[in-house]
Amino acid sequence: MKKSIITLLTDFGTKDHYVASLKGVILRIHPQCTLIDISHQVNPQDIKEGAFILANAYSFFPKGTIHLAVVDPGVGGSRKAILLVTRDYFFVGPDNGLLTLAAPRGRVKQAVALANKKFFLPRVSATFHGRDLFAPVAAHLSLGVKPKAFGSELDSWVELDFRNSRTRKQELVGEILHVDLFGNIISSIREQQFFHFTKDHPFVIKIGKRAIHGLEKGYWAGKKEEVMALFGSGGFLEISVKEGSAQKILKAKRGNLIKVQRSS
Amino acid sequence: MKKSIITLLTDFGTKDHYVASLKGVILRIHPQCTLIDISHQVNPQDIKEGAFILANAYSFFPKGTIHLAVVDPGVGGSRKAILLVTRDYFFVGPDNGLLTLAAPRGRVKQAVALANKKFFLPRVSATFHGRDLFAPVAAHLSLGVKPKAFGSELDSWVELDFRNSRTRKQELVGEILHVDLFGNIISSIREQQFFHFTKDHPFVIKIGKRAIHGLEKGYWAGKKEEVMALFGSGGFLEISVKEGSAQKILKAKRGNLIKVQRSS
Amino acid sequence: MKKSIITLLTDFGTKDHYVASLKGVILRIHPQCTLIDISHQVNPQDIKEGAFILANAYSFFPKGTIHLAVVDPGVGGSRKAILLVTRDYFFVGPDNGLLTLAAPRGRVKQAVALANKKFFLPRVSATFHGRDLFAPVAAHLSLGVKPKAFGSELDSWVELDFRNSRTRKQELVGEILHVDLFGNIISSIREQQFFHFTKDHPFVIKIGKRAIHGLEKGYWAGKKEEVMALFGSGGFLEISVKEGSAQKILKAKRGNLIKVQRSS
Repeated sequence: MKKSIITLLTDFGTKDHYVASLKGVILRIHPQCTLIDISHQVNPQDIKEGAFILANAYSFFPKGTIHLAVVDPGVGGSRKAILLVTRDYFFVGPDNGLLTLAAPRGRVKQAVALANKKFFLPRVSATFHGRDLFAPVAAHLSLGVKPKAFGSELDSWVELDFRNSRTRKQELVGEILHVDLFGNIISSIREQQFFHFTKDHPFVIKIGKRAIHGLEKGYWAGKKEEVMALFGSGGFLEISVKEGSAQKILKAKRGNLIKVQRSS
Repeated sequence: MKKSIITLLTDFGTKDHYVASLKGVILRIHPQCTLIDISHQVNPQDIKEGAFILANAYSFFPKGTIHLAVVDPGVGGSRKAILLVTRDYFFVGPDNGLLTLAAPRGRVKQAVALANKKFFLPRVSATFHGRDLFAPVAAHLSLGVKPKAFGSELDSWVELDFRNSRTRKQELVGEILHVDLFGNIISSIREQQFFHFTKDHPFVIKIGKRAIHGLEKGYWAGKKEEVMALFGSGGFLEISVKEGSAQKILKAKRGNLIKVQRSS
Repeated sequence: MKKSIITLLTDFGTKDHYVASLKGVILRIHPQCTLIDISHQVNPQDIKEGAFILANAYSFFPKGTIHLAVVDPGVGGSRKAILLVTRDYFFVGPDNGLLTLAAPRGRVKQAVALANKKFFLPRVSATFHGRDLFAPVAAHLSLGVKPKAFGSELDSWVELDFRNSRTRKQELVGEILHVDLFGNIISSIREQQFFHFTKDHPFVIKIGKRAIHGLEKGYWAGKKEEVMALFGSGGFLEISVKEGSAQKILKAKRGNLIKVQRSS
C-alpha cells in the first residue's frame, strides 16, 4: 500500500490556526506528503455529522490513503485515541464513533489504541490532540511505520449509533442523516432497500406532513420550487427542490423520520 | 504543454463531502497531480458569478493548467459536458456558459463534447457529474490524453450573455459584474475603454443616485467611509470605500448600471 | 535551509479569485512548491487578528518555510513591503506589524525592504500587492534567491502594539487576544507568568463581572455550560465552556481585560 496521501476532517473551521498547525506538524515529519481537506466545517463537536461526511468521501481516494479525523469533544479526557485499518485505508482519530460509519466493525482488519509516545509531539497538550497526537501519528504512518508500532491491539471501540432504515408492516422507515449546502435532505434509505420494498407497487414518500409521489431522475427534473424525491450520488433517498432548497421549505432536521408506504 | 496542475471552481461549498470526492477521484487516476482550489463558494447555481471568478483567476496559472469548473444546475439533464482548449489552458465543465468568460469563442482552438465513457467513472450518477464525469476527464487530461479522445469536436456551445459596457451619446454605460468580500463593487467598464471615452474631459461617474468625481489611485486613498472610484487589479472600474464596504453604503446589485458622463 | 513550502495568510476570503491568483503566480514561478493555507478568514483589514493567527501557526512548519501574509489596508500607499528572516523561517508581507508577533524584533536576523522590481510581476497594480509583489517575491525566495537580492537592509519596521500582560500590585492583568470558532476566549497571560504570579496562593480570575476560581485540565472537564479557565494549546490562559461557547455567555471582546488576583 502506498501511503503518501493524508486527508483531514475536523470541526476546527478555517479561520483559526488549528488546521494549519496540524498540517505543519505533518509536513515537518513527512514533507513530501499530499494533504487534502475533506471538511473543516463540521458543526463544532458534532460527531454524527463528521462521521457522515467522512463516510461519503473516503472511498474515492487512492488505496493506502490515511484519513485523519478530529471531532473530539472529549479531548484530553479518558476517551482513547485509535487507528482503524481496513483493506484499503487507514483511519486515525478519537474513539468516539467518528470513524465507524466509514470503517464499520465488519470491515476493520486491525484496530490499535494509540499509546506509543515516541510518535507524539514531545509535549502533548490537554486541549489539542489533533496537533500533538493524531497529526504526528498520521505522518509517521504515511512514512511506513506499521500500525502495531503505535500501541496495542483493541478488541472493541465506540461505534456510532445511527438508526438504520427498517421495514415495519407496510412502511419502510428511515431518518434524515444530513442536510447539504444546497438544502438537499439526505435520508438513510438506500436505493436497493427502497426498490426491494416497493417492488412494482405504487408508493408514497412521507416527510412531515408532506407526501411525495414518484421519483425524479435528477435535480434538473421536476418543477421549480416543488419538492421532489430522487436517489442522490451517495445512493441514498434525497428530498430536493429544483433550483431551490428543500430544507427551507420543509424545515426538516437530522433525525426526523422519512417513511415510504406502498399504496396498494 | 505541461499538464499537472488542476484548479477547481464549484458551488459545492467546503462543508459537505462533494469537493473531497472530486479530489479523491482525480488523485486515484493521477496521484502526482497538483490540486488548487479557485473557489467553492460560488452562490449555488450562479453561473455568472462562477464565470466571473474563473475569468479573473485562470490566467495567473502556468501554461497547461487544467481548469475544472462545475456550477451545474442542469446536471443529469440534456446539457452537454465540454472541454474547451485555448492556446495556454484547458477548461472542463458543463456547457452552460460557465467557461466562456475565461475562454471566449475567439480564443478557443478546439472544443470537444465529452462523450467517451472510458474516461468517466464506471457508474455515472444523474446528480453528481463533477465527481463521475468532469473529475475523471480532467485527471486523464492531466496524464496527457489528447482532447479528441474524449469525444467529437463541437462547432457551437452556450456562451454567457454578459452585457458589455458601451458608449451611447454622451455616456459610457456598464454594469456591476461582481461585489467582492470587501464590498468593492466591480463594474464591466475597462480601463482602456474609460480613458478612450473621457480623454482629457472632466467626467462624473454615476451609480444609483450617487455621483463620483475623479479617480483615486488605491484603496488607501480617499477619505474614510467616503465612496470613491478606482481601477482595480482586474483592470475594471471599481467603486470602493477606504476601510469600509461600498456595498453596504450603496446597496448595489449585480446587473445594476454604472454610467460615466463627460461634464463638458 | 530547504525552502519549498509557502504558507498563506490573508483577509481575502475564499470566495473571490484573490487567493487563487496568488497561488497561480507562485506556481508559475515555482511549479513544485507546496502551498499551505494558514487562514484567509482574517477579518477584513484586521492586522492584529492576522498577527495572532500567524503567530500561533508558523512554528509548527518545517525549517525554511516561507510564511506569506497579506492583511494590507495600506496597499499601494506609502507603507513598505518587507521580508523578515529569523533562524528558521522567512516572513513576507506589508510593513504594518502583521509579521511581528511571529517574528519579534529580537529574533529577526535580517530585514529587507522589498524593492527590486525584477522579482515583481511586470505590472504592479495599486490595489493587489499580494498577487503582484508579495507572491512573486515568496516564489523566488523558495527557489533560493538570497534575501539581500530583493532590496536593501532595514534597521526598523512597524511593530505591533500588543499590550503584554503585566503585574500591578496584587493583580496580573492581561487582555483578550482572540476568540476562536468554538467561542474560547484566549488571553495574553502565559502559563509561566501565571504560575510565577500565583505561586502556591489561592487565586481568582476576573473577566467582566465574572469570577472564576481554579483551573481545569481540559475542555472535557468542568460542568456543561459553566465558564471555566484553563491553559490552551498555545500556552495562553483561556476562558472556555464545556460543549459550549464562552463568547456567547460572556460577550467578551478583543482588548477587554482579564485579571488574576491572589486571594490571600
